[in-house]
Amino acid sequence: MQNDSLVSQLEFLREIDRLKSIIRQSPLLDQSRKENSAEHSWHLALYAMILEDYANGPVEILRVIQMLLIHDIIEVDAGDTPIHSMTDGSQAERERKASIRIFGILSGDQGEKLRTLWEEFEAGETNDARFAKAIDRFQPLLTNIFTNGGTWAENQVSRDQVLNRYRPVIQGGSPELWNLSEEWILQYFGLVG
Amino acid sequence: MQNDSLVSQLEFLREIDRLKSIIRQSPLLDQSRKENSAEHSWHLALYAMILEDYANGPVEILRVIQMLLIHDIIEVDAGDTPIHSMTDGSQAERERKASIRIFGILSGDQGEKLRTLWEEFEAGETNDARFAKAIDRFQPLLTNIFTNGGTWAENQVSRDQVLNRYRPVIQGGSPELWNLSEEWILQYFGLVG
Repeated sequence: MQNDSLVSQLEFLREIDRLKSIIRQSPLLDQSRKENSAEHSWHLALYAMILEDYANGPVEILRVIQMLLIHDIIEVDAGDTPIHSMTDGSQAERERKASIRIFGILSGDQGEKLRTLWEEFEAGETNDARFAKAIDRFQPLLTNIFTNGGTWAENQVSRDQVLNRYRPVIQGGSPELWNLSEEWILQYFGLVG
Repeated sequence: MQNDSLVSQLEFLREIDRLKSIIRQSPLLDQSRKENSAEHSWHLALYAMILEDYANGPVEILRVIQMLLIHDIIEVDAGDTPIHSMTDGSQAERERKASIRIFGILSGDQGEKLRTLWEEFEAGETNDARFAKAIDRFQPLLTNIFTNGGTWAENQVSRDQVLNRYRPVIQGGSPELWNLSEEWILQYFGLVG
């Protein structure tokens, strides 16, 4: 094989196969097992495609989808960070180092472009990133609703903790999806007391 | 919840969660287990993003990615069809019926648009579909190469069977990726005799 950039591209695609073995807190909807970060990323890309009209302001859907497809790749080095865990600066630093190593496998500006896109997602300041982050929070919320509490029940989090952790991100990217989410959360915690 | 199209959109996103339980023949690269169709679809979308420059002619990458994200959804009704299996007309008919039911969960023209996109992928006649199909064939080939034969060894297929099954699809979508694939195939079968 003579083409150096193709060699590094295939090495990158090989390396990210490991995302299929990073296990998240959220279960599949049939509760047969926990979800992994690769299939989660696939599902989020579909969420974005299907729910694009609920974005808060105009978005470029290709960029949103690409962000969601790559947003968890750093976990192959840094591991998954559950929503209901306390994180500190060291996790952010591990993720930054992971982004440099993993996207750096790609030669030329392809890796740099993806790393910049990942940073844009993390910063959550553009319309595209805000919508992508809202989707990334909305899908596990929906999973919890569909599985009678899911990780909320497991981690014994309160209604106010849930509202505080989901509201800023979902409302920032999609007020309409937040209105629905809030309704569900209140209904769920109303039922479980 | 008042919004009827949002109800059907969430029902669709819930239904396709089942793709995470459709198991393919191909293993993960670490051979810890078989791959499922949801994480496979995620990986293909990344392959398309990274290898876009090797497409045979201009492609609209958003459409290619969307095709790859949805191409296996029909399997939640119709099951996976391994490359090295004999298929008959009844499988195609099952897939067509599945596409009508599953994309039909979406109201308005959103479901119809996705079903049309899936049909375009299946027909494999446009540049976008040809490249998407090439990627869908190239990823398992790479997996077999990286896992010492993978499904080729398991199914005891011959060099010529492999060349005949992979060549038309990969070469049609990406002559450059085919050249590399052929080199690998010849090398693999040269080694195993």
